[in-house]
Amino acid sequence: MANTTVGEALDLIGGELQDLISTVRAADQVPAERALDLLADADRVFVHGAGRSGLALRMTAMRLMHLGLDVHVVGEVTTPAIRQGDLLLVASGSGTTGGIVQAARTAADVGARVLAVSTTDQSPLSEVADTTLVLPAATKTDRSGTASAQYAGGLFEQGVALLGDALFHALWQRSGHSADDLWPRHANLE
Amino acid sequence: MANTTVGEALDLIGGELQDLISTVRAADQVPAERALDLLADADRVFVHGAGRSGLALRMTAMRLMHLGLDVHVVGEVTTPAIRQGDLLLVASGSGTTGGIVQAARTAADVGARVLAVSTTDQSPLSEVADTTLVLPAATKTDRSGTASAQYAGGLFEQGVALLGDALFHALWQRSGHSADDLWPRHANLE
Amino acid sequence: MANTTVGEALDLIGGELQDLISTVRAADQVPAERALDLLADADRVFVHGAGRSGLALRMTAMRLMHLGLDVHVVGEVTTPAIRQGDLLLVASGSGTTGGIVQAARTAADVGARVLAVSTTDQSPLSEVADTTLVLPAATKTDRSGTASAQYAGGLFEQGVALLGDALFHALWQRSGHSADDLWPRHANLE
Amino acid sequence: MANTTVGEALDLIGGELQDLISTVRAADQVPAERALDLLADADRVFVHGAGRSGLALRMTAMRLMHLGLDVHVVGEVTTPAIRQGDLLLVASGSGTTGGIVQAARTAADVGARVLAVSTTDQSPLSEVADTTLVLPAATKTDRSGTASAQYAGGLFEQGVALLGDALFHALWQRSGHSADDLWPRHANLE
Repeated sequence: MANTTVGEALDLIGGELQDLISTVRAADQVPAERALDLLADADRVFVHGAGRSGLALRMTAMRLMHLGLDVHVVGEVTTPAIRQGDLLLVASGSGTTGGIVQAARTAADVGARVLAVSTTDQSPLSEVADTTLVLPAATKTDRSGTASAQYAGGLFEQGVALLGDALFHALWQRSGHSADDLWPRHANLE
Repeated sequence: MANTTVGEALDLIGGELQDLISTVRAADQVPAERALDLLADADRVFVHGAGRSGLALRMTAMRLMHLGLDVHVVGEVTTPAIRQGDLLLVASGSGTTGGIVQAARTAADVGARVLAVSTTDQSPLSEVADTTLVLPAATKTDRSGTASAQYAGGLFEQGVALLGDALFHALWQRSGHSADDLWPRHANLE
Repeated sequence: MANTTVGEALDLIGGELQDLISTVRAADQVPAERALDLLADADRVFVHGAGRSGLALRMTAMRLMHLGLDVHVVGEVTTPAIRQGDLLLVASGSGTTGGIVQAARTAADVGARVLAVSTTDQSPLSEVADTTLVLPAATKTDRSGTASAQYAGGLFEQGVALLGDALFHALWQRSGHSADDLWPRHANLE
Repeated sequence: MANTTVGEALDLIGGELQDLISTVRAADQVPAERALDLLADADRVFVHGAGRSGLALRMTAMRLMHLGLDVHVVGEVTTPAIRQGDLLLVASGSGTTGGIVQAARTAADVGARVLAVSTTDQSPLSEVADTTLVLPAATKTDRSGTASAQYAGGLFEQGVALLGDALFHALWQRSGHSADDLWPRHANLE
């Protein structure tokens, strides 16, 4: 088998992401707009994801902080208890990741809202979520190569990062603030 | 040389910590009481330390969150910019750690207060700090074994953890709240 | 009620730690010496603890790295799967923390060894652990104030930090290496 | 001004990434192939980036661990000193980020290789790097909106994540291993 060059791999990834975006764009846009309301209306936003999905959500969390939202990453030492009025933003490709589903249930039990990003809206996670944003991609444990030629949940995790940035971008445009308005919120102690 | 048992090592550590506490107790208590005011009066508390000192301060940060303070760890993704009215709590054995001193200067420049924990109050760090709490222990780069038989800054780092818990304990007693009052703030999503 | 000063809080903490060390010293020393063998014989060491216990174990993990061991913190992005020949070092005051007990079972299932630090050796955790080091302190959820006047599991968490440093100190003495030998392993990129 | 919908924001991001990939594909492919050799030949790989670039590199780091490489994130507690034979993989949009450039110099000084991802190969960072992979995107402090309609360095940070996954994908194909071969390396203790 011929080796894949880095350029060819980039083409593959870019092509899969374009297909993903096209499918998302052809679907119902109501959940995405509702997601903006959930984020804008939350007292505080908590993000929670395992592994690379969690890293992608941290990228989103940093941007939401730049917008002025009060944001916490579940598992960090200064993250307080979630409560009514807060929003939990979670990502799980399969919608069955144990710790994520349990956290979503706890959040719902205390009266917080839950916004999920997943490959399906038919899962234990989406059952408890107020809104599920569906990214049609392979799940982490799907190693068949049919949904994506990338390894495991790679496409889903990239999708979480891009969707998070799209949510930020739309909120930013809504806010009416310029880039210069956001800049002073960037961390200044490192 | 005969091997040291774990029990003998515990005795050594316990003895060094008792000496450390005795020396701290014999010194001026004004800085410690002033530290309580700085913590109680801050809009938000930011903690910053390198390596094991940073881990010890994270232990303190978690307790301050349990008390209801708005606490951030420098370097975490959702930590915003520090500003006037905030407090930066830093630890540096030598008082010369580059990134820590620079952060203290930035904090002071924007009008935030700076509370330092160090082995000395004669250092670049203590010059910029509003208050320095002195722990008479070896610094990280002192490998002579004269100030402590423990490796490098071990005694200092243990001291930071205990001092942080003492600050918390005194603030908690001041607050008049019971343990049951604090409990609901513990993270509930893990 | 009169306020507690920081100095009085330090005395309280120092006194409780002295009592803790005395009780540990009066107990069977075999588990502690066996812990040294488990650490020394492991291919790789994984540490895992929740909240402040996890931070205390990270302090230990950093020191074990300085000794030249191959060390991983469970939950960090580059931590691989544990396997036969590895050691899992966990801390749980109650010995019942769900995620910790589950991790210990997984480790045991794949043939790794498990070293536990806890307030009891009669728990689900100690059942699966090869060796349990007992620190007679309050558990996190004991808010009665009878076992310790400190908040929640504070004394236990301090004990984990000191015990970890005692294990390190004894291993270091065993190794025959000087402080100067260890120093080049300290992180050089920050 | 009409609000931007999430779908429109996704289109914008997808379009900018396609342009980025096209420009990268039209440029010299030699640095990218050399990057594969640097990764494959390294004793250990260290990744280092600030903020969202650092999160994107952590996504790459996790995948490199799945491939069986010995990977460390700079700043994590168990990360040892870098030395000859190791590779430092860094990302900085401007190529001037203080801490990143300093780390690259230290790595080069001890004889390690340096692989940089940046928007330019004319910078203090690229001067010290063995190879620089150029992503033609806005830098973090460019808030003019000319290079990208996204906020600050958003496009660059997305590019770092995708390029990291492309490097992984090409290395994976080179390795001849199946997805099932990689799976057992996924973290099993959470």
